[in-house]
Amino acid sequence: MTDTTTTTAGGPTDAQLAAGRRAYELDRAHVFHSWSAQETLDPMSIVKAEGVHVWDADGKRYLDFSSQLVNTNIGHQHPKVVAAIAAQAAELCTVAPQHANAARSEAARLIAELTPGDLNRIFFTNGGADAVEHAIRMARLHTGRRKVLSAYRSYHGGTHLAINVTGDARRVPNDDGDSGAVHFFPAYPYRSYFDSATPEEETERALKHLEDVIVLEGPANIAALILESIPGTAGIYVPPPGYIEGVRELTAKYGIVYIADEVMAGFGRSGKWFAVEHWNVTPDIITFAKGVNSGYVPLGGVAMSEAIYQTFAQRPYPGGLTYSGHPLACAAAVAAITAMREEGMIEHAAALGENVFGPELRAMAERHPSIGEVRGAGCFWAIELVKNRETREPMAAYGGSSPEMNELVGALKAAGMLPFANYNRIHVVPPLNISEEDARRGLAIIDEALALADAHVVS
Amino acid sequence: MTDTTTTTAGGPTDAQLAAGRRAYELDRAHVFHSWSAQETLDPMSIVKAEGVHVWDADGKRYLDFSSQLVNTNIGHQHPKVVAAIAAQAAELCTVAPQHANAARSEAARLIAELTPGDLNRIFFTNGGADAVEHAIRMARLHTGRRKVLSAYRSYHGGTHLAINVTGDARRVPNDDGDSGAVHFFPAYPYRSYFDSATPEEETERALKHLEDVIVLEGPANIAALILESIPGTAGIYVPPPGYIEGVRELTAKYGIVYIADEVMAGFGRSGKWFAVEHWNVTPDIITFAKGVNSGYVPLGGVAMSEAIYQTFAQRPYPGGLTYSGHPLACAAAVAAITAMREEGMIEHAAALGENVFGPELRAMAERHPSIGEVRGAGCFWAIELVKNRETREPMAAYGGSSPEMNELVGALKAAGMLPFANYNRIHVVPPLNISEEDARRGLAIIDEALALADAHVVS
Ligand SMILES: Cc1ncc(COP(=O)(O)O)c(C=O)c1O
Ligand SMILES: Cc1ncc(COP(=O)(O)O)c(C=O)c1O
Repeated sequence: MTDTTTTTAGGPTDAQLAAGRRAYELDRAHVFHSWSAQETLDPMSIVKAEGVHVWDADGKRYLDFSSQLVNTNIGHQHPKVVAAIAAQAAELCTVAPQHANAARSEAARLIAELTPGDLNRIFFTNGGADAVEHAIRMARLHTGRRKVLSAYRSYHGGTHLAINVTGDARRVPNDDGDSGAVHFFPAYPYRSYFDSATPEEETERALKHLEDVIVLEGPANIAALILESIPGTAGIYVPPPGYIEGVRELTAKYGIVYIADEVMAGFGRSGKWFAVEHWNVTPDIITFAKGVNSGYVPLGGVAMSEAIYQTFAQRPYPGGLTYSGHPLACAAAVAAITAMREEGMIEHAAALGENVFGPELRAMAERHPSIGEVRGAGCFWAIELVKNRETREPMAAYGGSSPEMNELVGALKAAGMLPFANYNRIHVVPPLNISEEDARRGLAIIDEALALADAHVVS
Repeated sequence: MTDTTTTTAGGPTDAQLAAGRRAYELDRAHVFHSWSAQETLDPMSIVKAEGVHVWDADGKRYLDFSSQLVNTNIGHQHPKVVAAIAAQAAELCTVAPQHANAARSEAARLIAELTPGDLNRIFFTNGGADAVEHAIRMARLHTGRRKVLSAYRSYHGGTHLAINVTGDARRVPNDDGDSGAVHFFPAYPYRSYFDSATPEEETERALKHLEDVIVLEGPANIAALILESIPGTAGIYVPPPGYIEGVRELTAKYGIVYIADEVMAGFGRSGKWFAVEHWNVTPDIITFAKGVNSGYVPLGGVAMSEAIYQTFAQRPYPGGLTYSGHPLACAAAVAAITAMREEGMIEHAAALGENVFGPELRAMAERHPSIGEVRGAGCFWAIELVKNRETREPMAAYGGSSPEMNELVGALKAAGMLPFANYNRIHVVPPLNISEEDARRGLAIIDEALALADAHVVS
């Protein structure tokens, strides 16, 4: 592991290191950061990135097991996508949404080709939150209803409506009490809200609960149900068998628009192009962002069924944004999707999940009493850390951090890893095209650091 | 004018033209467009753009008097900004918001340098709507109040909260009746809501009305007042003398956060870096997007005062987005701002407004009975068209279009211009670095086409 903890050949130049130090000073003077108390921050200055690695302003190299915010599905600086951005920039950076443009059209065509069923019409946004906002608007106008069902323990974005449908502690300070969001309890076998003993029981009880909520809220009031196909930030808690199929059936039964939020789970992350494919389900709307172009240029969007589209065929859709279908962002999507296909990244991610992450993480769970559960698919895994396996007491409370988790994250960073941590979980979410060797190297870093967490286990 | 209506040397290649035709077909099959009934559209396929010109898939060249959606303040394909995008793409496309990065820090520093007063802390978003959403959140948490005052005849963005604070016909189908938005009547001398006879009277009455609204809504309930410093899409109706100063005084008096929405008016559009500078006023928050990097890469943001910043110094700000401070977008901002400075674009825009657009449009108003009013500053002008100068009956009703306006827009396009039209207005909003010659060429096209509008005048 020594090579990850020191300055390496191929690392940043002196000029990049100096720029990184200045970037830190200016950041502290002028940059306001997401989700943070500004004066408690000590951000890492990133000066270089390549493939699965990033370098800080001390020249230290890190293995990026976070894919930043789980968005660089193709890794950093993929040469084909970098070249496509430069080529599109030289040709045509931007045109307004009312015009047609080759990059935009081709991105829409490719995405329509990848989405399941008849989700062949694409509305482009700048990111995930506005995709969610517009998906909900479409569902409301399509149904003439207002309420939106969404799961506790979910994340749907930071704008006002998106954070209100979110089911996460970050919603609380933003909750306006009348957003129309109604939260239900999701299927989450490890911490069942239904006292289920088995995944099958969890599915059955969670679906009964969902139908109870629908009936008691009044189906005639409910425009949409929005659900992450595999909830991401909230814990990569893969739905138990039959749950997603049941959600599709219930929403169809009650005429509710089913929005599958695939902003994080989509574009190969779980070893399928879209996570709903694990259950062969076609929702009415898919929201996407992140992996669509790995975030090289901001892009998100909504893929909708023909029925939703028809609602706005002759009647204006009352929504839009200046950068809808931005050519530079769309050119990056075309290049990223093409590279993912040509290089077999989805298949590679699926195989890594089957052969490396799954087996190795489960083996680690045998060795480490701090691991309560491991779960995931593809390059999308969570390790849930507990103080006690019997009580499942989390290593940090819901919505917060803890000295134990901070210690662990510090150790991972010291060992040369950029981890993704949330509450009591470490997520294993590297780029889909990580080599098996790098994947194992990262797992070894986690394996070693978990001794710290084990020391806090009380049993 | 012949050169604008035919294929020109330096125009698109055959390959670009073929790509443009294919783009049109794919667009109709897969691209869902903003603000539109999808099957009533016939979008122009744009295959090439350079400076103040764009070319369609027939090879026809247009003078871009729209700056797309009033965002390409530096024109199309500015070589320095294109080069900066390619360079940043080669170096580092994206890093997550929690890290520090040179492009992001430098963009924040430059913007802080340009904004008035102590608005030195920058929160980056992807566009204008999310800038507005976050600005309102900051104001709500800063004050502990919920309501937001905003003007009728305004535009603040397409996400749910942003469209609810908007005062435009497009809000109506999205109005949720409990967004916390309260609309007041703005100062708009040409169509005074206060029966004012002079600009001075308009200022006095509009400010009295605003204070009445504040008092009757209850200052203790009002978090923010959001106002476009010069309302853009709604008609570039420049506030009369004293109005903006009065808004600043009233908001200060009642402890209301004053958000100046400079998404369209900012970054040189009106001949100043920010339009509030025309009145030497410092708001508490400025929202920006568009001109910050001319939309070459999606970017928006919030510049906030030290007092707002301090609210989130030790307490977490509950908001964020995956692409906050996106390096590629920020590098484009650094290059665009630098080019605007080095090439004196703001001064050029101010001079064009003084010496060309102002005098020429006023002279046109003498010749054309269909012109009810011309108004503006810099490269930010509106021509308000009326059927009757006495009654001021608009050439298209508020919120709609009309055969007369469609005919005029069609004639402008036929003559080789890409116009920006809204309801009964034609906006003159070319890039800031348009040459005097091209500016006069565009005005001549409008001058000629207005004969059509004149024919509909009834008096
Ligand atoms: C499932 C899901 N939906 C929506 C979003 C919001 O995306 P953005 O941050 O691009 O607004 C995220 C971001 O993490 C997400 O994971
Ligand atoms: C004043 C103003 N605010 C906000 C917006 C919304 O910006 P965006 O379309 O980037 O979301 C606009 C867009 O035209 C605008 O003109």
